[in-house]
Amino acid sequence: MTEDLTALKNKIIETYGTPCAVIDLDIVERNISKAQTLCDSAGVANRPHIKTHKSPLLANMQIDAGAQGITCQKLGEAEVMVDGGITDIIIATNLLGAARSGRLAALQKRLPLKVCADNAVSLAEYSKAATQADRALDVLIECDTGQLRAGVETPVEALALAEIIKADPMLNFAGLLFYPSLDGWPRTQVFYDEIVEGLASIGLQAHIVSTGGTPNFVNIGKLNGATEHRAGTCIFNDLMMVEAGVASLDDCAFQVYTSVVSRGSSDRGILDAGSKTLTADTGGLNGFGRIVEHPTARIHKFAEEHGFLDLSKCNNKPAVGDIVRVIPNHVCVAVNMVDQLVAVRDGEIVDVIPVAARGKLV
Amino acid sequence: MTEDLTALKNKIIETYGTPCAVIDLDIVERNISKAQTLCDSAGVANRPHIKTHKSPLLANMQIDAGAQGITCQKLGEAEVMVDGGITDIIIATNLLGAARSGRLAALQKRLPLKVCADNAVSLAEYSKAATQADRALDVLIECDTGQLRAGVETPVEALALAEIIKADPMLNFAGLLFYPSLDGWPRTQVFYDEIVEGLASIGLQAHIVSTGGTPNFVNIGKLNGATEHRAGTCIFNDLMMVEAGVASLDDCAFQVYTSVVSRGSSDRGILDAGSKTLTADTGGLNGFGRIVEHPTARIHKFAEEHGFLDLSKCNNKPAVGDIVRVIPNHVCVAVNMVDQLVAVRDGEIVDVIPVAARGKLV
Repeated sequence: MTEDLTALKNKIIETYGTPCAVIDLDIVERNISKAQTLCDSAGVANRPHIKTHKSPLLANMQIDAGAQGITCQKLGEAEVMVDGGITDIIIATNLLGAARSGRLAALQKRLPLKVCADNAVSLAEYSKAATQADRALDVLIECDTGQLRAGVETPVEALALAEIIKADPMLNFAGLLFYPSLDGWPRTQVFYDEIVEGLASIGLQAHIVSTGGTPNFVNIGKLNGATEHRAGTCIFNDLMMVEAGVASLDDCAFQVYTSVVSRGSSDRGILDAGSKTLTADTGGLNGFGRIVEHPTARIHKFAEEHGFLDLSKCNNKPAVGDIVRVIPNHVCVAVNMVDQLVAVRDGEIVDVIPVAARGKLV
Repeated sequence: MTEDLTALKNKIIETYGTPCAVIDLDIVERNISKAQTLCDSAGVANRPHIKTHKSPLLANMQIDAGAQGITCQKLGEAEVMVDGGITDIIIATNLLGAARSGRLAALQKRLPLKVCADNAVSLAEYSKAATQADRALDVLIECDTGQLRAGVETPVEALALAEIIKADPMLNFAGLLFYPSLDGWPRTQVFYDEIVEGLASIGLQAHIVSTGGTPNFVNIGKLNGATEHRAGTCIFNDLMMVEAGVASLDDCAFQVYTSVVSRGSSDRGILDAGSKTLTADTGGLNGFGRIVEHPTARIHKFAEEHGFLDLSKCNNKPAVGDIVRVIPNHVCVAVNMVDQLVAVRDGEIVDVIPVAARGKLV
């Protein structure tokens, strides 16, 4: 097994160099299957968020495993997914820039999308885009019940938007999008029940009621009326998910293989992966990732292309030239730094998967 | 002027959507010229670090303005720059992954590179690569005098590496690479003087003695014996450079144009740019960038595609649909998130510059 790993590391550095982003397809498949089972058991459809992997190939694996469709965060992601054969897509954000650039209309012309809004300005842009596409847009109203991010804060505001959608022949009311905070599910239920009553009074019904988040798998099924769940990170997992208690280290499918390139003194060292590889996003954790081979080593700082190692707590210290594997704190942003993922299975390289929607900012 | 800006914003959102990375070429040219003048005045050659812009077009502008050559951090950057016609390149890091993958040898076959090392393992890899390329490699020894990053910590270690280089027919000793901390220049002088004496005793001479860093422009010329300076950020500048006192806000050439996409309540709002655009790298500052139109608004948090606005201190609050310009804390990592820079001059779009070496991790 150790010999296999050494052979794999050598193969990776000789073929791709370091740092190199690697996924284990066996773990990926297990993670996909686990998420599907959790949704199935709760009686809600699975609509994974592809922001984590940004790959049509992996999205299609999720669909083949039973997912209803996918969630995208950017129109550019949806464009890539449509090109990859995916047809059922919610874009879970106010698409102002993409709407005004005409790209929303162009994609809506190709196939019917589901978009989200929490304000009338977005609705007006969506109406224009739908008119330009000559196809009405399905719109979900985004509701905030605890993240203080996007989303209307009251059922009254949600209903006001529903009225605008109802009055617009180019917009169809499709449902409600929630991202409850971990302890916000009871509050979400109250919010939801009030909206549903209001919607009924104007003759509307929320066909889709979506909840979100990998950590929220612990709550899945707790919103009476929910029809779908969208989770992203669970396909790969990361230290944040381990910290949240929803994954173990063995469930982490993504690792960056990186070389120890310098050992300035006994207690310190430098990796060839820095913030331009693993990102400065700590996800609220201490340090920047876990080194599988040296769990007591600490990546305490990043320069752009350097990871700073504190080896003071290590008995067995890595040497210059060693290749080590790092599990990132936050995998979604780390995947977005690379153009491709080297896929392994049983210690063998079996595929190279393009991160086709990497960097799609619009 | 305000009308011009509105027209430019509309043009940008309609052509590219938001978020969109924009540079002002007039400011870029002024910044390039200022860096060159500082080097000229100090009597050292200018070897800008291209990690900030990652564009051969901009690198050639720096060379046309008088730069001796360029500095790269990754071999992949150097490959792109060679393709763009640049011939004088120092790669300022231990290139272990790139050496073992054979890419260093392949590029060295095309033209003579200058590489850096702080350890014997790197030297052995360089020797192999040079043999494979059938062309000896010029090697600088990286010395640490305060950053505690890469680099040998003592002149004795530097001399030991110089001896290895001297004994290897495939390696040429080319000089010394320093990145002194801001207050570490006197210490660097002592370090340097001791090495030079040792080098002389074994018949070697440091033809290149390189110092680095935009903030270190305040120290340029203070190392007696320095032949070159390598600075990256100064071509664009950012809030870190403003904080360091080496640039003003008017010297910041790079801005992200982003839309206000949500206004959940009176004191908060959401931008369509988050950590996947501007990165989670705070550069040690508070908040995540400065909004030019609303300097009292605070970007206090990022999700991947959302910037969280605290508007509690704003009299004039942005509305949904407004396009605002953000100067990032750390421009080098923000540029690395985008595939292209929209170039403007006098409020007109004049070019689109590919970030050709974006994401070159190896």
